[in-house]
Amino acid sequence: MSLVGARNYTVIGVGGVGGYYGARLAASGLPVRWVARSDVEHLRRHGLQVVSPRGDLRLTDLEVYGSDDHVPPSEVVIVATKTGTNEALAERVVSLVADRGILVVLQNGLEVEAPFAAAAANRPSVRILGAMSFICAHKAADGEVHHLDYEAVTVGAYDPSGTPQGVTDEVASVVADLRGAGLPTEPLEDLWEGRWRKLCWNVPFNGLSVLLDATTAEMVGDPSCREVVVTLMEEVVAAAEAAGHPVAADTVATMLRNTERMTPYAPSMKLDFEARRPLELEAIYRTPIEVAAGVGADMVATRQLHQQLAFLDRRNRS
Amino acid sequence: MSLVGARNYTVIGVGGVGGYYGARLAASGLPVRWVARSDVEHLRRHGLQVVSPRGDLRLTDLEVYGSDDHVPPSEVVIVATKTGTNEALAERVVSLVADRGILVVLQNGLEVEAPFAAAAANRPSVRILGAMSFICAHKAADGEVHHLDYEAVTVGAYDPSGTPQGVTDEVASVVADLRGAGLPTEPLEDLWEGRWRKLCWNVPFNGLSVLLDATTAEMVGDPSCREVVVTLMEEVVAAAEAAGHPVAADTVATMLRNTERMTPYAPSMKLDFEARRPLELEAIYRTPIEVAAGVGADMVATRQLHQQLAFLDRRNRS
Repeated sequence: MSLVGARNYTVIGVGGVGGYYGARLAASGLPVRWVARSDVEHLRRHGLQVVSPRGDLRLTDLEVYGSDDHVPPSEVVIVATKTGTNEALAERVVSLVADRGILVVLQNGLEVEAPFAAAAANRPSVRILGAMSFICAHKAADGEVHHLDYEAVTVGAYDPSGTPQGVTDEVASVVADLRGAGLPTEPLEDLWEGRWRKLCWNVPFNGLSVLLDATTAEMVGDPSCREVVVTLMEEVVAAAEAAGHPVAADTVATMLRNTERMTPYAPSMKLDFEARRPLELEAIYRTPIEVAAGVGADMVATRQLHQQLAFLDRRNRS
Repeated sequence: MSLVGARNYTVIGVGGVGGYYGARLAASGLPVRWVARSDVEHLRRHGLQVVSPRGDLRLTDLEVYGSDDHVPPSEVVIVATKTGTNEALAERVVSLVADRGILVVLQNGLEVEAPFAAAAANRPSVRILGAMSFICAHKAADGEVHHLDYEAVTVGAYDPSGTPQGVTDEVASVVADLRGAGLPTEPLEDLWEGRWRKLCWNVPFNGLSVLLDATTAEMVGDPSCREVVVTLMEEVVAAAEAAGHPVAADTVATMLRNTERMTPYAPSMKLDFEARRPLELEAIYRTPIEVAAGVGADMVATRQLHQQLAFLDRRNRS
């Protein structure tokens, strides 16, 4: 298998993230297989439409599979489902990766790759990467993704030891494919640093958007809410440092400034809450809190927010 | 003036608390003057009705004053308004106290007596007491108070130095009047200990009832929310200790148990929020946080809750 060229991709999960990136990869000429859930029939019949300020896409004649179908192995498999089902899906997902292929876990949170790495333990030729998307996109209806803003991606290599792997050949090859699809993509020397850095944004804004029913603009604009945001961000920065993956010193200031300039929007956790879907509390709150506690950093404010959200999540779905 | 006997009372604020306790005092035979706001005319024409499991009361021919009327000085003046207007009302309230009379600040929170003490600085014969009510009662309509449960009161002597004053003659005399009206009343040797102890309940349950739109039963019943409650209570206990007014060691456990047994209800802050009234954030959160910080206790979780509430309060009234 060559590490560059028209490799076959499988995209698992056709929500805002999977739908958008999969469509861009397909539009760039790469063969893409889709594994969907409720909207298999719709995707087969009507294809996938992406409405985007970067140009709309309309893809038809898709190769779509349901969760129980036989899916031919692909050189690259991108997992773009919610993190809550990682444990349950891990074995099946790993089975869709060709020998010497790559599994890309395109999700927020910490250690989301771990269940897949465990399931791939007896397939050492499969490489596991982690990836994060910086995007405002959501599934507006079956087969219809609305992209509002941003589309950047970061990709890094995962190893169960937690040791930074540098930019491996596999990372470079996936970055090349994403860039070939016109997506601004950066390789990560240290995947964990990238994940902690993203948590600096997700920990305050995802949770508070649910708890306070507030947009990003309200949260950075109100002086009291901004204090809460800063406290949470600083806890994540301290935890990353304690865990041996320090983020850049200006991370908090830069994120606040960027968020002030953003079009106000509701983070994905807010959309999940409104749709009464489970919140991604384990990947974004519980695991970081546990990892930090393991290296002596007590995330007091983050713990409180997590507990408040756990209560709301439980009530919301009962 | 004798410290016992049929002294004249003035009750300022005819909400759930002022209406209930004033009515009980009046029903016990004490002469009570009422200072009301919006419902002066209603109280003059129709009197005050209290619906209560301890027996309903129907008082007519009340001596009711508006906020700008001349009110004859009384031996005892009870302030039962919300804390948010203490600064603005202090001079006027002190002027309603007879020489050698008593001002009772019947409110939640820390240092709520301070504005009144400052306004009474040139009237050393006026004694200032602090009092707290443990009651579920609210104003259901003009001239109509609904009492649901509990009615206990604690009373202690205030001094700007913050030094416990013991049970003074003035405290004993007000306790005697309240007990004479059938109200379970306890004198406080240390007013500040009593106020911190009450904050152990108010800090978690008042704020979280607003933030999570939850009843007391939900808050102690849900394991995650209960953790938040306990963290906040323990911060208040630590702050009280640091401030030199330690509460009993079993305070947290006792309050949790009592709250489990309570009829589920919405604390007064929740009712204020729903009516879009200002929340009592200064007395219940900001001042305790500042006092604790001054003695080296950082109330991290309480600060976060305060900031969240400040955001919600601002938006709620904008």
